[in-house]
Amino acid sequence: MEHQPVTLTPPLRRAGTLRVMVVDDQPMQRLVVHRALTRLGHQVCEAASGEEALARMEHEAVDLVVSDWIMQGMDGLALCRALRARPGARYVYFILMSSRDKREDMIEGLAAGADDFLRKPVDFDELAVRLHAGQRLLELQAGLEERNRELQAAYQQIQRDVDAAGAFQKSLLPQETFDDGRTRFAWLFLPSRFVSGDALNCFGFDAQRVAFYNFDVAGHGVASAMVAMIVTQMLSPQFSGGIVQAARSASAASPAAVVQSLNARLLEAGIGTSYLTCVFGLLDQRNGSLRLVRAGHTLPVVVLPDGRVHEVAEDGDLPVGLFDDVAYHDIELTLPPGARLCCYTDGVTECEDLQGEPYGLERLKTFLSRTAACPAQDTVREFEAEIRRWAGGDSAELRDDISMLLIEHVGAGAASTVVEVTRA
Amino acid sequence: MEHQPVTLTPPLRRAGTLRVMVVDDQPMQRLVVHRALTRLGHQVCEAASGEEALARMEHEAVDLVVSDWIMQGMDGLALCRALRARPGARYVYFILMSSRDKREDMIEGLAAGADDFLRKPVDFDELAVRLHAGQRLLELQAGLEERNRELQAAYQQIQRDVDAAGAFQKSLLPQETFDDGRTRFAWLFLPSRFVSGDALNCFGFDAQRVAFYNFDVAGHGVASAMVAMIVTQMLSPQFSGGIVQAARSASAASPAAVVQSLNARLLEAGIGTSYLTCVFGLLDQRNGSLRLVRAGHTLPVVVLPDGRVHEVAEDGDLPVGLFDDVAYHDIELTLPPGARLCCYTDGVTECEDLQGEPYGLERLKTFLSRTAACPAQDTVREFEAEIRRWAGGDSAELRDDISMLLIEHVGAGAASTVVEVTRA
Repeated sequence: MEHQPVTLTPPLRRAGTLRVMVVDDQPMQRLVVHRALTRLGHQVCEAASGEEALARMEHEAVDLVVSDWIMQGMDGLALCRALRARPGARYVYFILMSSRDKREDMIEGLAAGADDFLRKPVDFDELAVRLHAGQRLLELQAGLEERNRELQAAYQQIQRDVDAAGAFQKSLLPQETFDDGRTRFAWLFLPSRFVSGDALNCFGFDAQRVAFYNFDVAGHGVASAMVAMIVTQMLSPQFSGGIVQAARSASAASPAAVVQSLNARLLEAGIGTSYLTCVFGLLDQRNGSLRLVRAGHTLPVVVLPDGRVHEVAEDGDLPVGLFDDVAYHDIELTLPPGARLCCYTDGVTECEDLQGEPYGLERLKTFLSRTAACPAQDTVREFEAEIRRWAGGDSAELRDDISMLLIEHVGAGAASTVVEVTRA
Repeated sequence: MEHQPVTLTPPLRRAGTLRVMVVDDQPMQRLVVHRALTRLGHQVCEAASGEEALARMEHEAVDLVVSDWIMQGMDGLALCRALRARPGARYVYFILMSSRDKREDMIEGLAAGADDFLRKPVDFDELAVRLHAGQRLLELQAGLEERNRELQAAYQQIQRDVDAAGAFQKSLLPQETFDDGRTRFAWLFLPSRFVSGDALNCFGFDAQRVAFYNFDVAGHGVASAMVAMIVTQMLSPQFSGGIVQAARSASAASPAAVVQSLNARLLEAGIGTSYLTCVFGLLDQRNGSLRLVRAGHTLPVVVLPDGRVHEVAEDGDLPVGLFDDVAYHDIELTLPPGARLCCYTDGVTECEDLQGEPYGLERLKTFLSRTAACPAQDTVREFEAEIRRWAGGDSAELRDDISMLLIEHVGAGAASTVVEVTRA
């Protein structure tokens, strides 16, 4: 459980030492400037030509260049232009030495990217002052760059941490798809950033029925994700003595009983002001009869094989985890063969395009109608592309967690309408 | 569940426009330079004196100053010095205009903090080129500053998010202290950064006994905190049908049975490669008899009222959540009146000082011995100060989560040694 602490210490480099490269094709000139710079406390290296300077700076870190203007081959101006043209390279402060000090020459030098000029023969006081001016700018930049690196490192560390939590959370999701010949189950789970306050599952409840749920914890971010994971554990079908196991062994197992227990359990657990909206359902695989509770959650939609869509459970109950003694109600309906139920969180319908328009229920129904004949898994995959496109493309961040599940009653036979929608 | 996405877009300001202040006490000179700058596309303002320039720059954002050297009152050099002396202010590029262009003058100007010089009368080509050089540096800086702001914002957003999760996690901790006249309980919980993979609790188990635990999830950060919170829920005493309730109703309730169930539960839950070390114990409040399991956890210590300390449960079991069918064993001992048991995570003993030396068990024992006569709550409070001092002071980050609990058997009577330490 250890980790490396990130230090956000003050950034400015204050060593007062520059790494200076002296470029001159005359050895004596180099030596003179080299000595003067060394006396000023700087680290000095030399290059005998523009070409050599450019080549060495591929490997050597240099803060500042003092270069003669007139040289054989690549002259000081050409060297300066070549340095300025290196993409992504650090800024190098460039001082041109020249016996030319006419206005036109200086303009030419500045246009090439030089920062300053030194008249030859070099006056050491002037050299010192010009270096000082360059150093001030370099230090300002170095400080900003250092601060950038620190912030980047701090951000990346915490991001990696939360990413790992997101991967952990994803590892607890159900198998990507599910098809036992009687029921097909496909789902989509898109956290808005790293972790999600949404959750969903589908699992065998008993010999005849599958259970499924989709919930959405209020709030967002890591705290909501923590609650989502706690609730996922509470609803775990493996947990002997848990909510689902208790419901299984009850004589009249019902979604209402499960949601009622979950409500009590959340209030018992005292997890602060957290609450959630959910759909919990049980589907009888023999005949498509379905009972579900909608607790503050978005409106589920039934999609028939011919593309007709029905909203169900319009008459929903209160969210879970807010109030003691809430009564939850089973809503009963029957899925004809080939029909599918779609549950989703409000991250879907409230997902805004770049103009701020929400995706909305109508668009969702149109999409589900259009894809009614596709395999459930393809529908979900296509919906991911659709909603990402809506939000502004793959690189656009989602403002809210998105999740969706499709439960399809494969069945046999011919019925083609939702048989019944009643509140039990 | 919404949040504002953070954009990490490319930073560089490329508008090509500078906010330039022209400082000159001669109106005609100002006008000429002002027009030239406006033609170059810059935003220009004027000041008729150094004093006015300085005052206006308290409120107006200026990127670059073109100032005459010789002015009544505060001259260009003094203005430059005053600008450079402003603490924390943005860098302003400073060009001195002067008919003086002797070497000594330039040295004086650079020493005052000027970046460049313009000879008077001003040549507009030269002005354009010098502005261009200044602009290049200012843009480089502005880009770095912008990137800094973006990183800072992104870091703060994710930090706030994880901070909120930490606050949520803390809200689930037990009451700060506990004293029912028969048992005293005090604890310490210091997350290394935002959230913790440690947890602890103490609660009434039945009429005679209190239960307590301290665990430490392997790994660190948000994912470990999520597991810690899931396990805390699993061990919740309120959870009817949960592990603790099941143990309560068993005829021979034992810590070993609880830890065994927890192990099975963690493996069932399939929460990846997560595992934890823990101590789980039951203390009989009538006579101080204590049963506990030590599963891979650090060595608990018993502290007698006279300051003698004993390590207990040297012979521990395997961590929880790693292997099926592990047998866990109760260790039995009896606390004499006034004796306390101390459990803690390895963040305590492995906490390093600035030289890298771990705090270690011996120091902990010495501390506990020295504070044996203090109220448990004071001991814990003092220990927080002690371990923070050790880690380098209040501002030093802890490399690992730290938690500790003290369970004191108040009792009556006179026994003064640990009666028995056996492995059941």
